Amino acid sequence: MEFGEVLSKRRMVRHYTEQPVSREALNRVVEAGRRAPSAGFSQGQAFVVVTDRTDRQAIARLSDEDRYLAAGFDPWISQAPAHIVICTSEKAYRLRYQEADKSSTGAEPNWPVPYWWVDAGAALQNILLAAVDEGLAAGFLGSHALPGLADLLDIPADYQPIGLVTVGHPAPDRRSSSLDRGWRPKEDVIHWNRWLRPDPPS
Amino acid sequence: MEFGEVLSKRRMVRHYTEQPVSREALNRVVEAGRRAPSAGFSQGQAFVVVTDRTDRQAIARLSDEDRYLAAGFDPWISQAPAHIVICTSEKAYRLRYQEADKSSTGAEPNWPVPYWWVDAGAALQNILLAAVDEGLAAGFLGSHALPGLADLLDIPADYQPIGLVTVGHPAPDRRSSSLDRGWRPKEDVIHWNRWLRPDPPS
Repeated sequence: MEFGEVLSKRRMVRHYTEQPVSREALNRVVEAGRRAPSAGFSQGQAFVVVTDRTDRQAIARLSDEDRYLAAGFDPWISQAPAHIVICTSEKAYRLRYQEADKSSTGAEPNWPVPYWWVDAGAALQNILLAAVDEGLAAGFLGSHALPGLADLLDIPADYQPIGLVTVGHPAPDRRSSSLDRGWRPKEDVIHWNRWLRPDPPS
Repeated sequence: MEFGEVLSKRRMVRHYTEQPVSREALNRVVEAGRRAPSAGFSQGQAFVVVTDRTDRQAIARLSDEDRYLAAGFDPWISQAPAHIVICTSEKAYRLRYQEADKSSTGAEPNWPVPYWWVDAGAALQNILLAAVDEGLAAGFLGSHALPGLADLLDIPADYQPIGLVTVGHPAPDRRSSSLDRGWRPKEDVIHWNRWLRPDPPS
């Protein structure tokens, strides 16, 4: 699919048909996540792809899916034929930036920005876009809504899940009420040359 | 361009020709950043697009570009015809998650994952990919290497720059030595169903 079409079609979808997703398509989607850039090529991200029905149902229980049903949503977590859990390791970055080519003293840099989280977001975006490119749809549920996820999937202590991407064939879904807020005005979000300088004529 | 081609062509490029980038192309690239998803549709990201030559040279001075030249790289920061600074606001997320639809008590959620950084990474990735789709190339320099950037661009205190994306027409560049590390083995990065469970036959 054309990149522009992928970009404009991408949205969080929270309802899937019962059609399974092929292993090949899933492989391509998660590989897109693996190809995301990382500071110092630290590659501190890792992925757990959950297709096992029992595990997906266990994850749905962790998410307290009933609260979605009570709010009129579909059971999008248990019904999604695949879950991709994205994990990131702060430790991988700290070790990488102590290596000789990054630190002459072995001392860690100042970290004004925690790139382990930023890079996990880049991997997340690649996965969301790659799902659309496969003709699939994806949603996202953050880790704050999934207590016990790391234990369930045997994720080691030095990796932290940022949440899970649900992947499946799209079904008509209920729109998130968050979208009713509308987009922020473009001129508040995109600044040219200086934050406070007015937008130049194009 | 096909999504798969964009994905496979994307890499950090640190050398650009003198050819300028059209305002229309830049607009599309930064719009791709604006379209990235955000937790609770917080839209806590903002962008400063710097095309002014004097400002770009000032940014290059902040980055201590001479150390790249000393290491045999091209002056990729001062030569890039456009810089896109990506900013994120933790405050925007904290305010969003105190709203009635996110909190019945007005209390903030527990934040095991700082989504303001994750979502900035998603915006970054959209920008990097959109540049490739325009036939351009992009690089990234983190905020730890840009002291004083927020002051230079009048970025308000509640927004933090994660770094800048250099955008231009690609010229033959010197590869980052970080890439010599090679990719981590796929089986260490992608796990199926449980972290420790062996990869099933495909």
